[in-house]
Amino acid sequence: MTEDVTSEGEEPPSTFDLDVEAIIEEVNGRDAELVALQLPEGLKRRAHYLATRIEKATGAVVIVSADPCYGACDLLDDQLEPLGVDMVVHIGHTLLGDAPPRLPTVFVEAPSRLDVRPAVEAAVPLLPPEGTIGLLTTTQHRHAIKDAEAVLEEAGFRTAIGEGGRRLAFPGQVLGCDLSAARSVADSVDAFLLVGGGRFHAVGVALAFQRTVVVADVEMGTAHRVDEERDRILRLRSAAIGRAKDARTFGILVESRPGQQRWALARSLRTMLQESGHQPILLLMKDVGPDRLFSLGMDAYVNTACPRIAVDDQSAYPVPVLTPQEVRILLGKETWGDYRLDEIG
Amino acid sequence: MTEDVTSEGEEPPSTFDLDVEAIIEEVNGRDAELVALQLPEGLKRRAHYLATRIEKATGAVVIVSADPCYGACDLLDDQLEPLGVDMVVHIGHTLLGDAPPRLPTVFVEAPSRLDVRPAVEAAVPLLPPEGTIGLLTTTQHRHAIKDAEAVLEEAGFRTAIGEGGRRLAFPGQVLGCDLSAARSVADSVDAFLLVGGGRFHAVGVALAFQRTVVVADVEMGTAHRVDEERDRILRLRSAAIGRAKDARTFGILVESRPGQQRWALARSLRTMLQESGHQPILLLMKDVGPDRLFSLGMDAYVNTACPRIAVDDQSAYPVPVLTPQEVRILLGKETWGDYRLDEIG
Repeated sequence: MTEDVTSEGEEPPSTFDLDVEAIIEEVNGRDAELVALQLPEGLKRRAHYLATRIEKATGAVVIVSADPCYGACDLLDDQLEPLGVDMVVHIGHTLLGDAPPRLPTVFVEAPSRLDVRPAVEAAVPLLPPEGTIGLLTTTQHRHAIKDAEAVLEEAGFRTAIGEGGRRLAFPGQVLGCDLSAARSVADSVDAFLLVGGGRFHAVGVALAFQRTVVVADVEMGTAHRVDEERDRILRLRSAAIGRAKDARTFGILVESRPGQQRWALARSLRTMLQESGHQPILLLMKDVGPDRLFSLGMDAYVNTACPRIAVDDQSAYPVPVLTPQEVRILLGKETWGDYRLDEIG
Repeated sequence: MTEDVTSEGEEPPSTFDLDVEAIIEEVNGRDAELVALQLPEGLKRRAHYLATRIEKATGAVVIVSADPCYGACDLLDDQLEPLGVDMVVHIGHTLLGDAPPRLPTVFVEAPSRLDVRPAVEAAVPLLPPEGTIGLLTTTQHRHAIKDAEAVLEEAGFRTAIGEGGRRLAFPGQVLGCDLSAARSVADSVDAFLLVGGGRFHAVGVALAFQRTVVVADVEMGTAHRVDEERDRILRLRSAAIGRAKDARTFGILVESRPGQQRWALARSLRTMLQESGHQPILLLMKDVGPDRLFSLGMDAYVNTACPRIAVDDQSAYPVPVLTPQEVRILLGKETWGDYRLDEIG
């Protein structure tokens, strides 16, 4: 038996809070008999504990989605409706205002228990002295953005927390596919501070705006800039566009996840590539991955699904995988000087 | 540019026939404006050629599914309907009578061009002399089963070609999840000859029936028995059941593909495991794979999806992945002596 799955009442240790009582109340309040549970990868180990706990407390049957879930764009209505699922509990992400689920869905956040202040303090020396700092964060640290603000103001900075578009759930939120909260303050800040972890969101902001971006890595209690990574990715993107100049056959990738689907964009890229003498075809995919593109054997691909796939993983792909804007640069309809990160929203 | 994708009229070389004219006629006859194309992995390289050829000849727009497609159980109605797809062209598989698609779908076979006779001749010395041979084959060789029959009869064998259940499209067909054609003649044959390639289907038959099974490998022009592989798999299955005796937490895997979904079976396994003191939860998956089960960290799994996943790939999984019948053996409701391969149908 594995030791890190507990199921009899005790909750496995974690740095994320999860309000199981609130979930139980929602399920009871809706008299749901069949409940689907979606968890991000980092919380998958709690699936067994949560499912059995909810089942015992509510009498409902729980079915856990075992597929990867990287955001609120991963809606499973099409799979869950035929099973007779009454409600969905979607953990760790916030509703995308422009892509709401069809089934009754409760978005339950999983806030980090960690103190953000040590990481923000570590970020102070990396920020432009006395500048205005755009504060950004992700769902699990949204409650702590005020703590971050206080640390920065004590250290003599001004702060700005932007309001974004419909896809966002709170001020200062950043998604891999939506930088609108950053955009709303970009002109008035000297740098961005991303309170979170990893490099994914910070690199997105750095690619999109000509600003210094510092990550306050909450889990590590450290901070770092992402300038070098931004520059490395930009070099790779420029090289990918260059390599795609010789491409004859193009696959245009369309995602089937409702929150990532840009069908009209895919159709217009098809027309644009045809008119410029290329040979595009439309491709539908559940998960974009290198092995699948290898099987298809085309010269280049354009990705209309999750904007980050091409940008972050290009080195894993044998041929260029471009963003929609990069195709317009390739075809001379835009210039490299206008380069920006692809977004949905 | 890759050299093996052609798109300007010339068809890439292949050992499979594909009647593109018939597909074009179907699309024109239905006035379809948006056509989805599904191909098995081995034909994915022809996707670009086929899509552009159909588009040019019909004026329809084609969208190719880039996800793996292992059978007619892989129906994409849920993904394709929202895009406005008018019809689906599903290549290389035959309709499952018990799991028909919702969208208008044309199943187009991709018959092998290879002569089956050399492989069947190679099989003759491996078969019980003067015995009755049950002939089985897969979709791509169905047209050649008469050639195989003739070779066997000339060599002094009697032959039997079984009729199967609703899931099958022609006599003698074998699917990974349906052995009903073999079952219908099993009692009256001394051995089975599987006209095909690979070991997948033959091992299924060997696991299900106490008969010699010989593969006539059409592509190689050779033949071999699968007794050893059958025995190896049976040892692994017995060991997996033994290891599952200590399992407390169980994940019950439910597939979302319509043609693989056994929801009632999954629910009954849940009840059965609960009643015997185990702690099962239901898990929904698009593709069952070792990495996904590893993330979930349970002690054991039961697979109600494609029957072959657990049986063929057990060594890739860190914990036991049982079939529904193996759970009944584990719980003492059936005995190892009754062991049979899991089937849908």
